Amino acid sequence: MNMTKLSDEVGVGRLPDATNEVRRLLADLESEVSILDADQAGPRYCRDWDDSVGDPAPVVRPRTPEALARVVGRLGAAGLRMVPQGGMTGLVAGGAPQRGEVVVSTELLDVIEGVDVFNGTMRVQAGVTLQAVQEEAQRHGLFYPVDLGSRGSCHMGGNIATNAGGNRVLQYGMTRASVLGLEAVLADGTVLSRLGEVVKDNAGYDLKQLFIGSEGTLGVVTRAVLRLQPQPRERITAVLGCASLDQVLQALVLTRRLLGPALTSFEVMWRDFVAFVTGDLGLGRDPFAGAAPFQILIEVSCFDPDEERERSRVEESLAQVAETLGSEQVVVAQSLKDAEDLWRVRDSSGEVARAMGDYLSFDISIPTSQLQAVLGRIEVELERLSPGMRKVTYGHLGDGNLHLLLACPSELAAAVEDRVYQLVTEAQGSLSAEHGIGMAKREALARWLPPAELAVMNRIKRALDPNGLLSRGRVLVSDFPE
Amino acid sequence: MNMTKLSDEVGVGRLPDATNEVRRLLADLESEVSILDADQAGPRYCRDWDDSVGDPAPVVRPRTPEALARVVGRLGAAGLRMVPQGGMTGLVAGGAPQRGEVVVSTELLDVIEGVDVFNGTMRVQAGVTLQAVQEEAQRHGLFYPVDLGSRGSCHMGGNIATNAGGNRVLQYGMTRASVLGLEAVLADGTVLSRLGEVVKDNAGYDLKQLFIGSEGTLGVVTRAVLRLQPQPRERITAVLGCASLDQVLQALVLTRRLLGPALTSFEVMWRDFVAFVTGDLGLGRDPFAGAAPFQILIEVSCFDPDEERERSRVEESLAQVAETLGSEQVVVAQSLKDAEDLWRVRDSSGEVARAMGDYLSFDISIPTSQLQAVLGRIEVELERLSPGMRKVTYGHLGDGNLHLLLACPSELAAAVEDRVYQLVTEAQGSLSAEHGIGMAKREALARWLPPAELAVMNRIKRALDPNGLLSRGRVLVSDFPE
Repeated sequence: MNMTKLSDEVGVGRLPDATNEVRRLLADLESEVSILDADQAGPRYCRDWDDSVGDPAPVVRPRTPEALARVVGRLGAAGLRMVPQGGMTGLVAGGAPQRGEVVVSTELLDVIEGVDVFNGTMRVQAGVTLQAVQEEAQRHGLFYPVDLGSRGSCHMGGNIATNAGGNRVLQYGMTRASVLGLEAVLADGTVLSRLGEVVKDNAGYDLKQLFIGSEGTLGVVTRAVLRLQPQPRERITAVLGCASLDQVLQALVLTRRLLGPALTSFEVMWRDFVAFVTGDLGLGRDPFAGAAPFQILIEVSCFDPDEERERSRVEESLAQVAETLGSEQVVVAQSLKDAEDLWRVRDSSGEVARAMGDYLSFDISIPTSQLQAVLGRIEVELERLSPGMRKVTYGHLGDGNLHLLLACPSELAAAVEDRVYQLVTEAQGSLSAEHGIGMAKREALARWLPPAELAVMNRIKRALDPNGLLSRGRVLVSDFPE
Repeated sequence: MNMTKLSDEVGVGRLPDATNEVRRLLADLESEVSILDADQAGPRYCRDWDDSVGDPAPVVRPRTPEALARVVGRLGAAGLRMVPQGGMTGLVAGGAPQRGEVVVSTELLDVIEGVDVFNGTMRVQAGVTLQAVQEEAQRHGLFYPVDLGSRGSCHMGGNIATNAGGNRVLQYGMTRASVLGLEAVLADGTVLSRLGEVVKDNAGYDLKQLFIGSEGTLGVVTRAVLRLQPQPRERITAVLGCASLDQVLQALVLTRRLLGPALTSFEVMWRDFVAFVTGDLGLGRDPFAGAAPFQILIEVSCFDPDEERERSRVEESLAQVAETLGSEQVVVAQSLKDAEDLWRVRDSSGEVARAMGDYLSFDISIPTSQLQAVLGRIEVELERLSPGMRKVTYGHLGDGNLHLLLACPSELAAAVEDRVYQLVTEAQGSLSAEHGIGMAKREALARWLPPAELAVMNRIKRALDPNGLLSRGRVLVSDFPE
């Protein structure tokens, strides 16, 4: 986990003036907002889940989306810089306030405004948690497919601002694919509200795409219309052991061919990951007791009312995959309890990251067919730079997304990052598959993206936030005057 | 079909100076581009498929994406206005050149640059047709899911620039969902090339989203990486007759619940549409001989190697839907020939549009649950404005997308459009579901979108094309000085 200390003056209340100014500017909005002084707000508003720590800052918590727009308009007109905050579960130091910033928190915007069962949509405010969305969908016999470990605390506004990924991207896409309508507030308080409830909408530029994944730098998400899916009747979970990465990739092609869109997860765990979880952490159980170099965790979503028929179909397909690959390591969960046991190891990735402390962490995408070659080259480089470096590897392989954690001596971190990002870039991969950029990877982005692309990103930033008031310095290294 | 005459001076070669200037500016690129004089180019480059007719214009056809970037850079530096052209199958007067514009055609960029079977991706140049993409995918046992009537002539560059929809959006989304990587050229010749081959990529703003669906106004698409899907083993087609729109909506909820993502099309034809096709046009056959007020055309994609098992599953599900609705009108195709017969009526929508000549045509989205109420109100308004007006109705109802063609006296067209768009806007629908805006609907967009949203679109336009050189006047009513 990267530790990003944004300041060494943490915990000292140095901003009474800012708080006073905020209180003065919002004096007549007292009933619509809750304001916390910089020295009262505490670590909840000052620290990202990745342990990046910001400066103490006054916190404004609007009680409605409309109040949020007024707050941002007022503070923006006064030239104050702002950082929108959701559940603070990001991993790239995006939400912790920097010196001089005011926190605009969406945590009081927690209303689910409606579910339309025929249309398959849900309208929510930005502060609703992912888990609340999932549960509300389920109550209506529907399904919100995005799922993350932080489901209980992450906010939908943050999910959208960071285009959150997770375990079911293979079939359902990233958060972007589940957002039909969006309301966002620009730095000058302008409200862009297109809460469309339809899948097809080609009426002008699709502005919502700009806000999805831009990490709060272009506007503050206040409301969204989410697309819901039919609720699977059952899920079948299985684990397949493989001897090589080559076998893993063959298994991916085969299972997709046999199961089509019913294949909703294809998660791969390297032996080093399984060993860390079951050994070092003592969590879960390795069904193959260390004998499988790779384990594929497969989830199949079932809709057939005849459950026996569907189960036999899925089991036949998995047996066929195993037979084609010559693998004898297949376990199919026979109960919900079984399935939970199989997912436990994979679901411990959060604990792994925490336990590994200041290990170097990569969240990269590599085109599936180049995975083996690129990983091979990364291993050669690591061995050259620091022989025997411990590493832990796992990922959403159906999407080419790989998480790689390295016990890298801090003096080598820069060199290792440089080599990994170079190899990933050359392979047309991504240096941030799902966690985004924040402040943690902005230098890497600046180094590895073509200058023309960075220049256009800066033009977009200036077009929507000409004074650089929102989340300055996240994603893009700021080129605004201090 | 809307007839948009962009000029009444068609066919007169008035632009020898422009052609000469283009030839002079590109003189040293002779081997990389083909140039046609304005008076040689002919209607192919001057007329959209919707019969909107432009001014004669010099046509530049670069032979490579790199040459296209050089061409645009040169012409842009000289201050010449340009309109990118693909297969010219758009329906909103987007591609026909206006006075003073140079056509930049992608038709010589017809190379499929590669298919990656493991990764499930295809890299193409902008001038490759949709059909060529579909066939190439199939040759590799894969599937490109977007499908349109103009598949044989429309270009992928145009599909992307207009975010094309079609018959399988329900499961696979619009074109946007199938684009992983994109290369585009800005008005100043800057090349933005992010030909990423991965589903997950949160490294900075997702700039490709800006070009998808912006109809050539922000940049010219030159290359793309497309996402391919597993190829279904078989497709089962069925038609279900319904007595009311209410029944149709119940059928939608039920079939989605029973079939999940296997349901890939849910097309609805009103009796007026079926009667027009089978009666007026004499095409296809109505399986219910006029007895069904609504017909739902259902396509289910099958992956189970045991075809009998899957067919019995699908037939049971459809029977259950019919039973729940109390409908006895169900036909399931038993052969490919059967399926083609069932699709023939729906596939005749192009002929319907042509045969109806200057009928008023709507391509709207309405949230499914509001469909009945909004359509009811539209009918009341039509009856009030022009009693007994003939209309033809069909659509991709699984997506809320409706096509409505009206035999509307031309003097009433403005009033009818106004009422329809008002009702659609109030229902959080879209005034252009899949065809886009072009010049045909820019006034409607300007009238019905909130001013704040239009202002931000103009800011984006100026950020990427500060002199308004690319496709000026499409999508947005131009605010550049003439």
